[in-house]
Amino acid sequence: MSIINGKEFIERLNKMKNEIWFDGVKIKGAISDHPAFKGILKAKASLYDLQNSQDLKNEMTFFSSENENPIGLSYLQPKTKEDLKRRRKMIEHWARHTHGMMGRSPDYMNTVVMSFASSANVLSGRENCFPENIQSLYERAMKHDLSFTHTFITPQVNRSQVYLGFSNEPISAKVIDQNEKGLVIKGARLLATQGGLTDEVLVFSAPRLFFDPSEAFAFSIPSNTKGLKFFCRESFVGGESSFNYPLSSKYEEMDSIVVFDNVLVPWDRVFYYDNVDAATDFLVESSFYQFAYHQVITRQIVKTEFFLGVAQLLVETINVGEYQHIHEKLSEIIIGLETMKALLEKSENDAELDEWGSMRPSIIPLQVASNIFPKIYPRFSEIIQIIGASGMISLPTESAFDSEIRSELDQYLQADGMNAEDRVKLFRLAWDLTMSSFGTRQTQYERYFFGDPIRLSSNLYKNYIKDKHVEEIRGFLNLKN
Amino acid sequence: MSIINGKEFIERLNKMKNEIWFDGVKIKGAISDHPAFKGILKAKASLYDLQNSQDLKNEMTFFSSENENPIGLSYLQPKTKEDLKRRRKMIEHWARHTHGMMGRSPDYMNTVVMSFASSANVLSGRENCFPENIQSLYERAMKHDLSFTHTFITPQVNRSQVYLGFSNEPISAKVIDQNEKGLVIKGARLLATQGGLTDEVLVFSAPRLFFDPSEAFAFSIPSNTKGLKFFCRESFVGGESSFNYPLSSKYEEMDSIVVFDNVLVPWDRVFYYDNVDAATDFLVESSFYQFAYHQVITRQIVKTEFFLGVAQLLVETINVGEYQHIHEKLSEIIIGLETMKALLEKSENDAELDEWGSMRPSIIPLQVASNIFPKIYPRFSEIIQIIGASGMISLPTESAFDSEIRSELDQYLQADGMNAEDRVKLFRLAWDLTMSSFGTRQTQYERYFFGDPIRLSSNLYKNYIKDKHVEEIRGFLNLKN
Amino acid sequence: MSIINGKEFIERLNKMKNEIWFDGVKIKGAISDHPAFKGILKAKASLYDLQNSQDLKNEMTFFSSENENPIGLSYLQPKTKEDLKRRRKMIEHWARHTHGMMGRSPDYMNTVVMSFASSANVLSGRENCFPENIQSLYERAMKHDLSFTHTFITPQVNRSQVYLGFSNEPISAKVIDQNEKGLVIKGARLLATQGGLTDEVLVFSAPRLFFDPSEAFAFSIPSNTKGLKFFCRESFVGGESSFNYPLSSKYEEMDSIVVFDNVLVPWDRVFYYDNVDAATDFLVESSFYQFAYHQVITRQIVKTEFFLGVAQLLVETINVGEYQHIHEKLSEIIIGLETMKALLEKSENDAELDEWGSMRPSIIPLQVASNIFPKIYPRFSEIIQIIGASGMISLPTESAFDSEIRSELDQYLQADGMNAEDRVKLFRLAWDLTMSSFGTRQTQYERYFFGDPIRLSSNLYKNYIKDKHVEEIRGFLNLKN
Amino acid sequence: MSIINGKEFIERLNKMKNEIWFDGVKIKGAISDHPAFKGILKAKASLYDLQNSQDLKNEMTFFSSENENPIGLSYLQPKTKEDLKRRRKMIEHWARHTHGMMGRSPDYMNTVVMSFASSANVLSGRENCFPENIQSLYERAMKHDLSFTHTFITPQVNRSQVYLGFSNEPISAKVIDQNEKGLVIKGARLLATQGGLTDEVLVFSAPRLFFDPSEAFAFSIPSNTKGLKFFCRESFVGGESSFNYPLSSKYEEMDSIVVFDNVLVPWDRVFYYDNVDAATDFLVESSFYQFAYHQVITRQIVKTEFFLGVAQLLVETINVGEYQHIHEKLSEIIIGLETMKALLEKSENDAELDEWGSMRPSIIPLQVASNIFPKIYPRFSEIIQIIGASGMISLPTESAFDSEIRSELDQYLQADGMNAEDRVKLFRLAWDLTMSSFGTRQTQYERYFFGDPIRLSSNLYKNYIKDKHVEEIRGFLNLKN
Repeated sequence: MSIINGKEFIERLNKMKNEIWFDGVKIKGAISDHPAFKGILKAKASLYDLQNSQDLKNEMTFFSSENENPIGLSYLQPKTKEDLKRRRKMIEHWARHTHGMMGRSPDYMNTVVMSFASSANVLSGRENCFPENIQSLYERAMKHDLSFTHTFITPQVNRSQVYLGFSNEPISAKVIDQNEKGLVIKGARLLATQGGLTDEVLVFSAPRLFFDPSEAFAFSIPSNTKGLKFFCRESFVGGESSFNYPLSSKYEEMDSIVVFDNVLVPWDRVFYYDNVDAATDFLVESSFYQFAYHQVITRQIVKTEFFLGVAQLLVETINVGEYQHIHEKLSEIIIGLETMKALLEKSENDAELDEWGSMRPSIIPLQVASNIFPKIYPRFSEIIQIIGASGMISLPTESAFDSEIRSELDQYLQADGMNAEDRVKLFRLAWDLTMSSFGTRQTQYERYFFGDPIRLSSNLYKNYIKDKHVEEIRGFLNLKN
Repeated sequence: MSIINGKEFIERLNKMKNEIWFDGVKIKGAISDHPAFKGILKAKASLYDLQNSQDLKNEMTFFSSENENPIGLSYLQPKTKEDLKRRRKMIEHWARHTHGMMGRSPDYMNTVVMSFASSANVLSGRENCFPENIQSLYERAMKHDLSFTHTFITPQVNRSQVYLGFSNEPISAKVIDQNEKGLVIKGARLLATQGGLTDEVLVFSAPRLFFDPSEAFAFSIPSNTKGLKFFCRESFVGGESSFNYPLSSKYEEMDSIVVFDNVLVPWDRVFYYDNVDAATDFLVESSFYQFAYHQVITRQIVKTEFFLGVAQLLVETINVGEYQHIHEKLSEIIIGLETMKALLEKSENDAELDEWGSMRPSIIPLQVASNIFPKIYPRFSEIIQIIGASGMISLPTESAFDSEIRSELDQYLQADGMNAEDRVKLFRLAWDLTMSSFGTRQTQYERYFFGDPIRLSSNLYKNYIKDKHVEEIRGFLNLKN
Repeated sequence: MSIINGKEFIERLNKMKNEIWFDGVKIKGAISDHPAFKGILKAKASLYDLQNSQDLKNEMTFFSSENENPIGLSYLQPKTKEDLKRRRKMIEHWARHTHGMMGRSPDYMNTVVMSFASSANVLSGRENCFPENIQSLYERAMKHDLSFTHTFITPQVNRSQVYLGFSNEPISAKVIDQNEKGLVIKGARLLATQGGLTDEVLVFSAPRLFFDPSEAFAFSIPSNTKGLKFFCRESFVGGESSFNYPLSSKYEEMDSIVVFDNVLVPWDRVFYYDNVDAATDFLVESSFYQFAYHQVITRQIVKTEFFLGVAQLLVETINVGEYQHIHEKLSEIIIGLETMKALLEKSENDAELDEWGSMRPSIIPLQVASNIFPKIYPRFSEIIQIIGASGMISLPTESAFDSEIRSELDQYLQADGMNAEDRVKLFRLAWDLTMSSFGTRQTQYERYFFGDPIRLSSNLYKNYIKDKHVEEIRGFLNLKN
Repeated sequence: MSIINGKEFIERLNKMKNEIWFDGVKIKGAISDHPAFKGILKAKASLYDLQNSQDLKNEMTFFSSENENPIGLSYLQPKTKEDLKRRRKMIEHWARHTHGMMGRSPDYMNTVVMSFASSANVLSGRENCFPENIQSLYERAMKHDLSFTHTFITPQVNRSQVYLGFSNEPISAKVIDQNEKGLVIKGARLLATQGGLTDEVLVFSAPRLFFDPSEAFAFSIPSNTKGLKFFCRESFVGGESSFNYPLSSKYEEMDSIVVFDNVLVPWDRVFYYDNVDAATDFLVESSFYQFAYHQVITRQIVKTEFFLGVAQLLVETINVGEYQHIHEKLSEIIIGLETMKALLEKSENDAELDEWGSMRPSIIPLQVASNIFPKIYPRFSEIIQIIGASGMISLPTESAFDSEIRSELDQYLQADGMNAEDRVKLFRLAWDLTMSSFGTRQTQYERYFFGDPIRLSSNLYKNYIKDKHVEEIRGFLNLKN
């Protein structure tokens, strides 16, 4: 077995009976029937079907020598620039199919797993490190086309720089015991998108100041592991009508707090533990950032194209294309889009083989893009709102169009270039994209995808090689020291 | 009779049986029981009770010589600067009671009615103008403490500058006939906040290029006038729980499209019709803008104080008060708040009597404030989102706290300076304020309250007297021509 | 004797023979004849004459009971709000006369001296403090209408937060010895505007982290004290022609590094020394900031009016008043201007008597204004450049208009509403205001007038009382802790 | 003969005796000795020498089949992407040698001439068009390594959209007569950078609304053609000292108004005249924009690297590298730099052959870059000023360091990581780059290089193909029309 289809994905997930709490109730029965999850699971299933479609199969899968069956291309370890571009095309297909709205589409996590495996050697020979378990994760994932989420953000108890996070009872998840079977974990992680909706959960730690060794671990375990619980936020599915909620009815992914209630992580699932240096080095030296950014930025470009389409169709519909300030606002989207595309392409063109034979996209253009997008995305959302103006406020629903006031709606909500129903559909999309609870969660999600934007710019600054430019100045001025 | 209380307001409204369409269904039964309206009507009722409270009665009402009973102070025609400041205090009371969230609180519309009456003489002796009907509206409103909404935005068919808006069947509401009883109106208006939730609807027209005489009218009619229909958008009430939806459960005002289906407007209700010049002059020369701005900006200041409180409490809760960029963001709110306050105060200090004896606040500081607020409000919303960061995303509900996972929530969602439940309440408030459908509608509402921001700055520029500053330069340079 | 006139000012200054170094040369002869200083000294002299003008004398001076002669009103210690408003009018007169271009106009420093004297009691009874010397400075200053500069910025050796500033030889000025005659000072201060062009220099220290006691002093000494040296930067006087350099020919103030080469400060000139707490308290508790801000912001408002005049005259001259983006840009200036005016007025209206009987303007509106201006001033400069566009680049000189190519210039540089000569004058003014070395120094000066803008916003945040707004939220949410 | 060296360039120019007016005086004698021009001409000469240097000759020249001698590579008509990249390297060499400061470096104009020749066929067979004269210009230019400036901006009489520009006497240069020898031109053009400092002037017209046929011409004539006059603005050379004026002493290019006093343009120099359509088509359809943008953006990238070097060296010198807001500001420069580089590279990678065999870089990424740079360049200038802060204000001169106060300067102006002299050199460079009259003219120049920024964004919007993105939305929503 290798790639699965949508049906297989759903059935496997329903069977797992992960412990998911929604609005104070533990979910029973098939998760795929639950109003909060049916839309996103259907969308996810359609992505698995995409891998199997005749048209795209070639571009979505590859064959490994050890495996006669096709494997999802998101697992491909790229050895050449062509591999990289092939990967990008695959990511575009997944992203286009969901218009860039699904942050945790399977290819994202598969890419993470691939990058971990490609860099497992970073851990070789280090204390409490088990690179072989990463490799077996990778093989298991390919074999079963597993789906994942990950979680690495600690609870937001206190964001002061000098907060050390000590408490009697664990808050942030930590190793509280270890025995012959494995590690015992207790505590919580703040946020897993699609938590409970995947086969496994990949758990690791973002390095930080005052990094407690008991929090310096990484592993992957099945979502239905005993003691593992997912506490959902409220659902942002507006309703089932795709007329009313064209996006949230399909792409609301759910986020959850992950609780480890004395979870036993078997030794063969542990990648490392109790090793602050290894935990830090692994994230810094592995190809995690390169490949994760490459996936994310490809998806964000597709999403930006969707924004441009919505903005331009709004402009045409209410006929405001003559205004200079409209040109300026649309140009902002175009400039953002083309800039992201150019940076992504440059990261591929400047890719280099790492010491373990992976063709890594160049990190600087990707870091630049990751600094730009969290700023332009909220602005694009604002631009849509400004173009829509008062037209965003009083939008009728599908039922209204199905009622006896339809003829009045048809007359009074028509646009010059569009009938009333289509126009309301379009404006409802603009609203769902930027103003519904679903839309604003998307904004917050993209704003923080790569972490705190302030830290992102510090990292870029520190990472960037500035010496030759400083030398140019020293030379120009004939400085002595 | 004069000021009413909340109960009277509700009963009178329920009796009217206005024709309100919600999600394709005509509302039957008491509007005050409907899930989409019960919260806002309760909040509104509490405002009427406020007028009757022992503590505030003195500051909320006045006595006219012709009337032995107290009258709502929002109807007071100010003759002195003290009157103006008294009015401001009254507005602050209304606004504080609802934290600035109710855009169409009764004092707003009462103020509009008062301003119309104070300036009725602008229409004296002009063709098709009936200033006496404005005066009788004013007296009727005071006598019965009527509630109003208004509507003046035309449907957004085509926003091109050269669009003339001709069509066979009316889209925008216009006079299609007149007879001995009155005018007959057919067509729609885009947006009335609280449409259907008030005793009357005040209808007038914003002057514009290519102003069709058949649209140049103004009148006020009962909301249950035959042929008058209100088509609601979907409700942004998240639910009844004030834990989950601290704002939308109380302050979701609803907006509706107003449809005139051959509505007969009796002659004694008509202020003017078929007179483009009078319609234009009335809005420009009356005290409408001065008093409306004075009310709105007072409310917006109160709302900004609410934002500052939320922002600062977030900062304290997750302990980020040490960061310079946090100081900068909170300072932005403080600067906005103090600027608005200073401008409002200046408008009062520079107030002048108009030719009909009204003490009008100075328009320039108010116009400046009305240029500023639509820009800073969305930014304040963004600041709250940035402070809350990932903490805004995965918030449990009231039911979750009432369930068996409570102890885990208590442990994992605690903040350093706040227990988990309070902290979740606070973050849910921050979310409802800035990210829920209710919150984003508030943003759009404040952004467009005074109309298109681009036109606002053109108007300020044109309105501002620049001559003496130009003369300073001519003098300094000794220019000849 | 009391107020002096321009001639007296010049003669007294020439007599002092302060040690001023310009471009590597010690200035000899009358400073008022030096090309780098003649313009500014003439402008300064005209300000002293203004005090004596028949028209303005009443508004520019006051009579004290102990003094039969009129005294400059900038020395008036305000006891009432009317005094404050009188002071503001006087400041406006000084500022209008120089179009807001002179940062160190005499009223600024007189105001500082007055504020020091009004708050001398802060130092009463504290170690190494001599409040009586501040009082005698104040009396001496009034009696002789002395002019001052001040200096409090330390050299920019290292701006790291953890830099302690130790070195074998003093860099920053410090007390290196004391004897029966007074303190001995060695070291430098970074910047004194008009250093060497005033009767005295007021020296004090801005409190800071790691405040070395040997730097915690304050005093005022004559500019020609032995060992006191002023090292000028290059001059930004473009030339003598007021056609070519309408501003720099008149208002270039010069900045200098102040060097203390074993300067003896007599005991009766010392206000305090070797007392870090007193030095800190004095700046925080005295009325220094209130009155200094009140003067500065008044001047900045006058300067903003000048910008508005230039911008509007440019708009009229090249006839771009029809463009919406021009309205937006001019509105930005109007909004800035009216905001500053409203804040200044509020600071006066909210003024309160301090414990020593001074009517202090309210600090918060002034702090808000001081946060705003450093951001809007550079933007105003940019707006002027954008309106002028390519027209700012190729401007002929006065000599060109006096030559045989004049008729061609007249023809080719005419504007629709202005002859070529006037138009070039106007554009040269726009250039001198925003693009000449003089203009950019003005920008940098206003940007840093109140210190580092980032620290300004931290201070505002910390200073602002936020409790009642936080309490509103706690109450609204019924928080328990 | 083909490429020339610096000496040949200077001698040829001196011989021409172009009619240049400076400060009301007609320049006599060798232009290369004039204080306003010696620096720039020396810099320009060094660029010609660069073509002849052993190290770079290969990368700076090419051999044509018809020409045995090496030709400047800026004349190469690219046929392949490799040619394009070769061109870019050559441009980088020119630009690095002058740190991106010379806007009219010879390669810019050579590129323009090359692009005209490559696209001469646009004019084939059209009325009043002489494509063969463009070809002979190209050959003449290569043969003699001619230098050029161009001019296409009309005088700024009236910028209203509806201004038609009629006047009795020509203001804007136009054809007033034609005879057997050629066209007679009278009137002015607003701005030619290095006007009078080149062998020839290339004159053409930017298409516009209300395009007068008498202004629809293009030609190239020697700078010393009878009746051709250059009226200079004042010089922004601060002085000869490269310590004091590291940039303006070398790179101040001068701008001038170009006056045509009945200039006869021989027929064999005319490219087209009296043909509005041809004039419009030529600029739109030729490869002018593609190749000009490609050159300009390459230079701007080199200049941005220079800014980054200056900014980083300032940071190191005053040791502010620990501050987050400094990281953010430096990151802004890095983001700008990398964005420009990625866009330039994409324009090369997406290049396509045009119908006449030229490999044109893709226009969209170049247009995007040309929209970005005018916004980020002024911001970079501001960032430098903000990092330098008060340290930018009081900088001593070279003479001061050569005088007896040197030891005091050495002590008081030292930085932690740099001696006083080097530190002052660095800060003077930062000042000359951003705050001197030279620096601000650079800002204005880059801001308007591609024309009015508002029009640039309109053009990008109109030029960009948005259809497929709109179709995505139509498909997603199943719209009917």
